Amino acid sequence: MSLSGKLKPAARVSGRRQDVWSIVNEAAAASPKQPIVNMGQGFFGYNPPNFILDAAKQALDRVECNQYSPTKGRPRLKKAIADAYSPFWGRQLDPETEVTITTGANEGMLSAFMAFIEPGDEVIIFEPFFDQYISNIEMPGGKIVYVPLHPPADGGDKTSSAAEWKIDFDELERAITPKTKMIVINTPHNPVGKVFSKDELLRIGDLCVKNEIIILSDEVYDRLYYVPFTRIATLSPEIERLTITVGSAGKNFYATGWRVGWLMGPAELIQYVAAAHTRICYSSVSPLQEACAVGFEQADKFGFWDESVKEMKGKIDRFNEIWHELGLPYSEPQGGYFVLVNMKKVKLPEDYPYPPHVASRPRDFKLTWFLIQEVGVAVVPPTEFYTDQNAHIAEDYIRFAVCKPDDVLETAKERLRGLKQYIQEEGRRE
Amino acid sequence: MSLSGKLKPAARVSGRRQDVWSIVNEAAAASPKQPIVNMGQGFFGYNPPNFILDAAKQALDRVECNQYSPTKGRPRLKKAIADAYSPFWGRQLDPETEVTITTGANEGMLSAFMAFIEPGDEVIIFEPFFDQYISNIEMPGGKIVYVPLHPPADGGDKTSSAAEWKIDFDELERAITPKTKMIVINTPHNPVGKVFSKDELLRIGDLCVKNEIIILSDEVYDRLYYVPFTRIATLSPEIERLTITVGSAGKNFYATGWRVGWLMGPAELIQYVAAAHTRICYSSVSPLQEACAVGFEQADKFGFWDESVKEMKGKIDRFNEIWHELGLPYSEPQGGYFVLVNMKKVKLPEDYPYPPHVASRPRDFKLTWFLIQEVGVAVVPPTEFYTDQNAHIAEDYIRFAVCKPDDVLETAKERLRGLKQYIQEEGRRE
Repeated sequence: MSLSGKLKPAARVSGRRQDVWSIVNEAAAASPKQPIVNMGQGFFGYNPPNFILDAAKQALDRVECNQYSPTKGRPRLKKAIADAYSPFWGRQLDPETEVTITTGANEGMLSAFMAFIEPGDEVIIFEPFFDQYISNIEMPGGKIVYVPLHPPADGGDKTSSAAEWKIDFDELERAITPKTKMIVINTPHNPVGKVFSKDELLRIGDLCVKNEIIILSDEVYDRLYYVPFTRIATLSPEIERLTITVGSAGKNFYATGWRVGWLMGPAELIQYVAAAHTRICYSSVSPLQEACAVGFEQADKFGFWDESVKEMKGKIDRFNEIWHELGLPYSEPQGGYFVLVNMKKVKLPEDYPYPPHVASRPRDFKLTWFLIQEVGVAVVPPTEFYTDQNAHIAEDYIRFAVCKPDDVLETAKERLRGLKQYIQEEGRRE
Repeated sequence: MSLSGKLKPAARVSGRRQDVWSIVNEAAAASPKQPIVNMGQGFFGYNPPNFILDAAKQALDRVECNQYSPTKGRPRLKKAIADAYSPFWGRQLDPETEVTITTGANEGMLSAFMAFIEPGDEVIIFEPFFDQYISNIEMPGGKIVYVPLHPPADGGDKTSSAAEWKIDFDELERAITPKTKMIVINTPHNPVGKVFSKDELLRIGDLCVKNEIIILSDEVYDRLYYVPFTRIATLSPEIERLTITVGSAGKNFYATGWRVGWLMGPAELIQYVAAAHTRICYSSVSPLQEACAVGFEQADKFGFWDESVKEMKGKIDRFNEIWHELGLPYSEPQGGYFVLVNMKKVKLPEDYPYPPHVASRPRDFKLTWFLIQEVGVAVVPPTEFYTDQNAHIAEDYIRFAVCKPDDVLETAKERLRGLKQYIQEEGRRE
C-alpha cells in the first residue's frame, strides 16, 4: 500500500527496494530444510556472561536505574569506558567530555552524522559498507562518496588473509573534494574481517589531517582481533583531534539487543554528537547501561576479553574446516566474527527457479537463496553492502556469521557438505 | 569550546541556549538547601511493579531476549499492545501492521516526523509543548506553527480545572495552510494536566479531515486520567485514517529509563514510521520489550491500571493541600502527574541576586531559581515550553511533578510552607 496526495511519505522512507533481511527471512520461511541454521544476521547465539546478566538484574531493583539517565549517559558507565580505553590512548580519558553514551552504536553514528553533516556535505565510505551507514548519512542530507576495497585477484581460487582486501590510495585521494566533511572507517571490518594495518590507518589519517576531514571510526568489533589491532585515534594528536571512535556493548558483551553504544573523541567534537543524540533519543536505556558499566569494570577480573578472543577464534577455525574439506577458498578473518567465502567454484543449476526479486540481483543473492532452500543454512549476500556499480566485486562471496553455539556450527558444516555435488574444480561459472 | 572551519557542527546542534535542565541542575547544585527535593523532571521516584521487574529479569536469561529484536518490535509486545488497545478501538487491532515499537515515545515521534515531513512542510503544535517536539520536527526540515492554549483569565486568583486551558478554534483554523502536513496533540497534557474533551477532539479531527492533516496524538499519559478520557483515533473512521497514536512504557509502567514506546495507527501510515525507526535506531531494547509485553498481558490481573490512577490521584490531592494552605491557586489536573501552580501572588525580593542567564528569562525562571535556592524544591519553569512571543502566558506558573514517593511529597510540602512570607494576598507584582 502506498499513500499519495497530502499524506504521502517523505522521500527518505519511500521507494524502498526489498532489503536483504526480508529476502533472507522469506527464503528461510519457504525452505523445506527446517529448522534453518541461521548464520545470517550477526547476533549471538548465546548469552552475555553471567557477571553482566547479574549486574543487569541487580540494576532492575534500583529506582534510579529504571528512570531517565543523563542524556550523555550514566556517569558510572562513562567512567568505566574512559578507564577501560585510557590504556590504549596512553592517557586518562575524561569521562565527562570525551565519552558519550548512545542508543547502540547505530544511533551513535547517526548522531555523529546529524552533528556535522549539512545538506551537500560529502562523506567517504568504503565498500562493502554496513548498510545503516547509507540512510544515516542521507538523513541529514549528506552525499556519499564510495571507495571500494579491492579483494585479492585470486580470491576465487585460494584462501588468503582478509588483509589482502586493499585500499587503492590514489582512488581514495581522488574521492576527496573540498566538500568532504567525514570519512567512515570500520575496523575490524564487517563483512570482510579485515583489521586495517597501522600503515593503512596512518595513510588515511594523514589524508584527513591534510584535508581537515572528521574520521568516524566504527570499531564495534574492537575486542575481537586475531592480529595486532590499531585504533586510529591513537596514532597522533593531529589524527586524534579529528577522530570519533564508535563502540558497542552489544558486540563487546554478546548482547546485540541491549542498544548500548558509545562515542569517544575530543571534547570539541563529542559535545555536538551528544547534542544530536539528545534530540534523537533523549537518553539511553538505564538498567542496561549500569550492567555494561559493571561489564567494563570486571571484564579483566574474569579474563573476559581474552576468553572472548579465544572462543571466537576457535569458532572461526573449526567452522572453516568445512571449506578446506570442500576446497572452497575464503578470506581468513583478522577480526570480528564474519567469514567471507568465495563460491566462484559453486555451479548453481542452470534452471533453478529463483523468485524475480532474487533473479534480478547479483549472483550472491542467488547463492544465498540456493543455500537456504537446498542446504538449509541462512547467510547474507555481501553485494547488499555495495553500490550497483561495484557489486560485481563481491558477487561470488557469501557472508557467514560464526557467533553461534558450537552445535549450530557443526550442524551448518554437516549441511554444507551437501554443496559438494555443485562444486566444479575448474571454477567455471554456470 | 566551539569549532570553525571545516570541522564546524551542523546548524541543528549549534547555537544552543542553555536549556532548562542544566539551569535547574546548576541551581540545585548551588543551593544551600541540601538535599534538594526534586519535583522537576517527570521521572518516577519509585520502581515499576514487581511482576514487570520479574519479567525483565526472566527475559535476561533468554538468549533471544538479549539479541536484536525485529525492527518493528517483538511480536509478543506488539500483540500485547494490540490486545490491550483493541477494546478502546472497538475492533481487533492488527499487531503486525497497526502497531510498531520504538525506542521510547520520543524516538517514536521523531520517526513519525522523519516519515512524513519534507523540508518546508508545516506542523502545528500547541503551546505549551513538550520541548523535544521542536528539534524532532526541525530535524527533517519541518516548519513549526504554534497555537497557544489559553489559560483562564483568573488563573492567578483562583484554582480551576485544567480543562479551562482552551483552544481558540479560530486561531487554530488560521494556523492551517496548504503546507500543513501534521498536527501534534498531547492528551493528557504535559505540563497543563488537561484531558482534551471529546468535543474539542472532534473539532480538531474535523479540521484535519477537511484539510488532510496527519494527527500525531501523544498519549503517553493515557493510563493516568481523572475525568473521562477520549482517544482521538477512536472518534470516526475518517479521523482514525489520519491518526498515529503514541504510547510509552516508561510512563505506563513507571520506567522512564527503559526507552520502550510504540505508535499505533493505520497500516498505510505505520509502515513508513517503522521504516524511519529502522533507519534511526534499527531496533529497540529486547529484554525490556519482553517485560513490557508481560506488563500489558498481566496489568488487568494485578489491577495495575486502576491502582495506578488511584495512587497518582492520591498524590496529586495530598500534595495540593499545600496550595490551599498557602492560598495559591493551581490548575487541577485532569490527567498525568504534573501540577501547574500560579505564583502571581508570590512577591520575590526585589534585590534578589539571579545569575544573568536566569535574570534574562521570564518570571517563572526567577521563581524556579528562588524556589531551589530558598525553599529547596526543584521545579520546572513552563515558559521553557513556549515561544518567546507567547511566554508571557505562563510566566506566573510553576510545574511540579508529583510522581514521587509520599515522603518526598510531604518534605516538599513542609518546605513550601516557607513561601508563606513571600505571598501577597493582593497579587501585586514586585
